Amino acid sequence: MAKENKAFVKEITPQSEDFSRWYLDVIQKADLMDYSPVRGCIVFKPDSYEIWEACQRELDKEFKRTGHRNAYFPLFIPESFFQKEKEHVEGFNPELPWVTEAGGDKLEERLAVRPTSETMIGHMYAQWIQSYRDLPVLLNQWANVVRWEKRTLPFLRTSEFLWQEGHTAHATEDEARAETMQMLDIYTRFVEDFLAIPVIQGQKTPSEKFAGAVDTYSIEAIMKDGKALQAGTSHYLGQNFAKGFDIQYLDKDNQLKHVYTTSWGISTRLLGALIMVHGDDRGLSLPPKVATTQVIIIPIGPQKSREPVVEAAGNILNQLQGLGLRVRMDARDDVSPGWKFNEYEMRGVPIRLEIGPRDLENQQVVLVRRDTGEKQFVPISELETALPSLLDTIQHDMFEAAKTFREDHSYTAENLEEMTSYINDKRGFVLAGWCGSDECERAVKDACSATSRNIPFDPPAQPTNCVNCGKPAKHAVWFAKSY
Amino acid sequence: MAKENKAFVKEITPQSEDFSRWYLDVIQKADLMDYSPVRGCIVFKPDSYEIWEACQRELDKEFKRTGHRNAYFPLFIPESFFQKEKEHVEGFNPELPWVTEAGGDKLEERLAVRPTSETMIGHMYAQWIQSYRDLPVLLNQWANVVRWEKRTLPFLRTSEFLWQEGHTAHATEDEARAETMQMLDIYTRFVEDFLAIPVIQGQKTPSEKFAGAVDTYSIEAIMKDGKALQAGTSHYLGQNFAKGFDIQYLDKDNQLKHVYTTSWGISTRLLGALIMVHGDDRGLSLPPKVATTQVIIIPIGPQKSREPVVEAAGNILNQLQGLGLRVRMDARDDVSPGWKFNEYEMRGVPIRLEIGPRDLENQQVVLVRRDTGEKQFVPISELETALPSLLDTIQHDMFEAAKTFREDHSYTAENLEEMTSYINDKRGFVLAGWCGSDECERAVKDACSATSRNIPFDPPAQPTNCVNCGKPAKHAVWFAKSY
Ligand SMILES: [Zn+2]
Ligand SMILES: [Zn+2]
Repeated sequence: MAKENKAFVKEITPQSEDFSRWYLDVIQKADLMDYSPVRGCIVFKPDSYEIWEACQRELDKEFKRTGHRNAYFPLFIPESFFQKEKEHVEGFNPELPWVTEAGGDKLEERLAVRPTSETMIGHMYAQWIQSYRDLPVLLNQWANVVRWEKRTLPFLRTSEFLWQEGHTAHATEDEARAETMQMLDIYTRFVEDFLAIPVIQGQKTPSEKFAGAVDTYSIEAIMKDGKALQAGTSHYLGQNFAKGFDIQYLDKDNQLKHVYTTSWGISTRLLGALIMVHGDDRGLSLPPKVATTQVIIIPIGPQKSREPVVEAAGNILNQLQGLGLRVRMDARDDVSPGWKFNEYEMRGVPIRLEIGPRDLENQQVVLVRRDTGEKQFVPISELETALPSLLDTIQHDMFEAAKTFREDHSYTAENLEEMTSYINDKRGFVLAGWCGSDECERAVKDACSATSRNIPFDPPAQPTNCVNCGKPAKHAVWFAKSY
Repeated sequence: MAKENKAFVKEITPQSEDFSRWYLDVIQKADLMDYSPVRGCIVFKPDSYEIWEACQRELDKEFKRTGHRNAYFPLFIPESFFQKEKEHVEGFNPELPWVTEAGGDKLEERLAVRPTSETMIGHMYAQWIQSYRDLPVLLNQWANVVRWEKRTLPFLRTSEFLWQEGHTAHATEDEARAETMQMLDIYTRFVEDFLAIPVIQGQKTPSEKFAGAVDTYSIEAIMKDGKALQAGTSHYLGQNFAKGFDIQYLDKDNQLKHVYTTSWGISTRLLGALIMVHGDDRGLSLPPKVATTQVIIIPIGPQKSREPVVEAAGNILNQLQGLGLRVRMDARDDVSPGWKFNEYEMRGVPIRLEIGPRDLENQQVVLVRRDTGEKQFVPISELETALPSLLDTIQHDMFEAAKTFREDHSYTAENLEEMTSYINDKRGFVLAGWCGSDECERAVKDACSATSRNIPFDPPAQPTNCVNCGKPAKHAVWFAKSY
């Protein structure tokens, strides 16, 4: 499907010139997506869908390890369900698409295309849960959801997206809160260890929490333009949905009680994060753990010496695949090595392995790191140990580089003026004291378009005064512009 | 989530009394599904969703082995797209749900919730394919689809269901036809080897083919009530969608040509087949390859001797899990062994492993087959070889039993009277000659509600005359009532 285009790297707008343009250039040129004819809906092309599959495998393993099982609930949700939790309906109503006709008839009750499934799942849990012996219920669903957003951006904010939504019900608040935190930790480990994206754990302010939640917790990542991206959320829903949907159980003491529920999710917007945290002016750069192709082998050299080189490259390919590494070879001879170098850099393959006639003579290859551009000669006999170790190093270094970037773009503001200057001139995350009032949060937004990201569990400093009103700060809050 | 109910096996209607009732009893009592509040939409509970996950893993491996990649296309399809292929719109229009409002506004163009994605994917392929070098395009999508059916039946015919749909584009008819057949073969192997369900490969008659296809091929399975179930279809679409959506490429000879496309799919209706082919009056019976739990270990015996028995059972559990077998233990002591026996038979676990104090003394266990009820004593020291071998035997025997059932319920009819008598009195598949006219096909349906299932590639006999009009038969056709 890729069109050959020898100059395509030149077509990417540099990040420094226009980060948004750079992003849109990269996702199309790296063949990750295409726009569909339906407003705000994109096509996930194989290269991006494979990244999502890798994320699914990794997370699904963690969900199952912690006792969750997968299930699947209906796409359509009756309108009346949204009325049962007041904040929920207010939060989601403006974004819902409605099915009003089906099978040739007008429907008696409109059906929403699910934006999230607390209501449908709440309704089902009410049928399934009767006694304390039925608890906890620990389910997860991999699904598509739809939110009719005003402004859309591929991967980050699309009308339809793919995600997982976990929904659990518990006998006690303690258990439900422990579950909420457990899942936030699982997300944190996944995003940091697998995607090599450092995140900040914390609690959302009331104005930013999930519609219907008691408490929302998030992990927040910084993109290379200094904006924040919410990479995952875990909600403690208390008894809000249990009361709305009448999810009750008979406890050991023979009392009828409402359950406590949680929900938690990550979505394909993580693909956007992956691109914007690791990408550069040459295109995508994928951490080895998530890369579908970890090593691309490219035989080089003149036509006349090609055969033994390609044969040796093929042997290396087989040997490395035998080790379980994800390796491919591009031995096409109608495309130049230079074009291939650009192509696989653009697509973010972590390591390029070059081998030419002279390398073959010396029984060595050249390894080139996508993240740093660093080259090294490695004897063929040592590849089996050198490559896995280099992949580990790259995974580690990419995480550290992203962490350093975040540290270099983290600030502390004492007042609105400082806040505005950091947000507008420096771009990044700004820690500030907050008195806890909605007004002061809004004042920050009005001043510089930054919103509260979260109240970190482990703030690097503890500001004493509110950044807006100067009253004693109740919390340290990270502010940033966000996707 | 399971409610304890010591008498539940008694609550299943026997198959011989009312097969439909039996089916509905089993799927609820084996905890596979629940009805949702939305018409014709069901909840896939973990026990059924896990079977679907096993199917996905197995098929996905085959798709990838044959060069296909996964992608994801939008759920919503603009109304105008359905107009571009005439037969397609006529076939699907009556079943479509329509989104007419979204984000608070009435939409300018109605959006269908996808019943299948030929149109959307056709539209995208037209953008992606320009040259012969872009071909073939070999994509697959795992997705939910919606068809607003008049009568619904859990798993078999639900308003929303889960499936995969492969969509490929080729430069030549030969290549596209080869792909169509390759995928039919992959489905056949999967359904026969993995689900232990024998199928008949063949071509659909024009009246039964996919709306928009040139030729539709299917695999058809017989259920225990003698009805047919279409287990998978593979369509050769010719240039119908290529012309409707303008999918053209520049060939080596510099000519602009339309591509040839295929599509193929299997869905969660296979879960219904699995239940109705292998299930019996004791409930579900799962082939070992698809069973999430292949062996359930149940320690038995009086309370006082329980501890060493449970310990020994735990050791066996670890040992077998170490072999990669999917084994669980139920050591609850507030539930009787008899209840557990019923429960795991109901849920279809292929092998029950019982161990009691006397077994422990003799260093042996009892293995009980779900499919035949057969018991055998096996020394603990031989379990590592005996169990994998018994699982293979069960998988093989279940397939053979289903095949024998099909042979016992296959007939040949010379005329409508015989056809009607076989269909109504014997129930099953009836092979008959067919002249090729729609009228004669309809005459069979009018006479006994049987429809043509397919024109088998390899018919057991070659009838000479049409079952209705008596003219020379063009084809041997399998007729049956169907789901
Ligand atoms: Zn304040
Ligand atoms: Zn005829």
